[in-house]
Amino acid sequence: MMNWPLPSTVRLFEVGPRDGLQNEKVPLSLESKLAYIEGLLASGLKDVEVGAFVREDKIPQMASSLQIFKELEKRGWSKKRGVTLWALCPNERGLDRALEADCRAIAVFTGATDTFTQKNIGMNVKESLQVFERVTERARKNKIRVRAYVSVCWGCPYEGKVKPASVVKLARKLLDMGVEQVSLGDTIGVANPREVVDLLLRVKPEITRDQIAGHFHDTRGTALPNCLAAVGFGVRTLDSASGGLGGCNYAPGASGNVATEDLVYMLEGMGIRTGVKLDKLCEASRIAIQSLGRIPASKYLQAWLAKNIPSVA
Amino acid sequence: MMNWPLPSTVRLFEVGPRDGLQNEKVPLSLESKLAYIEGLLASGLKDVEVGAFVREDKIPQMASSLQIFKELEKRGWSKKRGVTLWALCPNERGLDRALEADCRAIAVFTGATDTFTQKNIGMNVKESLQVFERVTERARKNKIRVRAYVSVCWGCPYEGKVKPASVVKLARKLLDMGVEQVSLGDTIGVANPREVVDLLLRVKPEITRDQIAGHFHDTRGTALPNCLAAVGFGVRTLDSASGGLGGCNYAPGASGNVATEDLVYMLEGMGIRTGVKLDKLCEASRIAIQSLGRIPASKYLQAWLAKNIPSVA
Repeated sequence: MMNWPLPSTVRLFEVGPRDGLQNEKVPLSLESKLAYIEGLLASGLKDVEVGAFVREDKIPQMASSLQIFKELEKRGWSKKRGVTLWALCPNERGLDRALEADCRAIAVFTGATDTFTQKNIGMNVKESLQVFERVTERARKNKIRVRAYVSVCWGCPYEGKVKPASVVKLARKLLDMGVEQVSLGDTIGVANPREVVDLLLRVKPEITRDQIAGHFHDTRGTALPNCLAAVGFGVRTLDSASGGLGGCNYAPGASGNVATEDLVYMLEGMGIRTGVKLDKLCEASRIAIQSLGRIPASKYLQAWLAKNIPSVA
Repeated sequence: MMNWPLPSTVRLFEVGPRDGLQNEKVPLSLESKLAYIEGLLASGLKDVEVGAFVREDKIPQMASSLQIFKELEKRGWSKKRGVTLWALCPNERGLDRALEADCRAIAVFTGATDTFTQKNIGMNVKESLQVFERVTERARKNKIRVRAYVSVCWGCPYEGKVKPASVVKLARKLLDMGVEQVSLGDTIGVANPREVVDLLLRVKPEITRDQIAGHFHDTRGTALPNCLAAVGFGVRTLDSASGGLGGCNYAPGASGNVATEDLVYMLEGMGIRTGVKLDKLCEASRIAIQSLGRIPASKYLQAWLAKNIPSVA
């Protein structure tokens, strides 16, 4: 077999409160954010990226991350069985703040091309690995879990097509330094299902399947087909954003993550369990969507909000 | 093999000017419609449903269908090699008008359940077949091609789940009366890729693959994954609407057809040829979208309009 076996369950890694919100212009109050995140957790999502320890002047939407962690701890979510609250930490300063927040799980972020990585985090790929080596080492000493994002795995706005072999090599290096999972990102939403499978065919001989996640953006409408291709190949972890946050309908051309609602609807319908209750998920997303004053990119949520989900028993 | 072989080309049946526009509230002028349709044809689309011979008081958006055919004839499109201009014709009155318009290809429309069919065309399924028998016979005598839509093949808002066996039986009857192709519609956008394959597994022993088309709506975001599943099974004809027309972003919950742009982007990227030039297609859709004053449901078109298609060579 070329593929891994088809999974019976898929682990959803919810990035709405971070990757989603950080691309939204309207600021969310601490109260709205907390209500949104608690709603997500109540829907059954187990891995939620709730914030980022980054420069507040650059990404003001993430400025409340320390408070978010403190509040979620007070409300009992930090120690809830099976639940992991994640934060993006690009560097050691971020890790200092993660430690201060009692955050137990962090994500680092690099890209498959030097130009993209330089423009996004001010380092080339090699330099980012040096930083992550220190971050990962310190994190692991503090018993903090570490995950890594690799952006532009299928295409870069500056360097064009990306070679699958270079993505596999980079993922392998990140895993070797102690990162538990690498999320392969189609950051500009350029991949198609065939290219998803092409990369996974290169990944498979080198990396075990739970060390890999798929992270697809919907710039050209292919996010959900790409998730289908990844799951069809046997991938068991997918990143998604509730409501399809991150791509604002008022700013055509912006690209959100694949919508968690649409993904849950598709997977559960196919008999692949996610552990997420769709109605509860929609209730959570509604909080964020209404606070942002926007139309959701999630088609399922659009229909749910319009009470246009006919019962098909 | 359970599947048909993977197709190297897919025939796109463009329903934007009919299934798309008839669900849009803003009326399009004759000039805008013609410019839109001519743009679609110039992009390389060969099968375009340009109108419907239905009651004008019920569907005013289709009132200009006779003029559309007359104008397209004047402009040389009716006789253009490889091009077929289609019209929806629900009954013999419709056929009379199609003959008057020199329309050479019509589509009839029924549903997989009695309740849906009754509510939509005022007949149950059996009665609709009696009508189509007469329509098809007269059409064929006049050398007019006939295609059939079967709605709610995967789920009905009134009767719930639909049995695959009953869809196959209905499709077989339509083909036996001389219809050349049956378009299997997920009218309420409820199907998932597994259910698409489940139905196709039932279809395959009874029907040849070019007698079948997939017609998917995007109510819950699954239209493009369902197209992928159908093409992966070997289906070679898909219906789609340029711009994703038919689901208005200003009326959340409405459900459009799968967007032709997103479908072309995905298929061409996978090496499956459609014969459609994406830039020209977007130019055509822009005419309709701007006339309607709406945000397109097509993600690719959204990005194209915002000039947010990075070149990934």
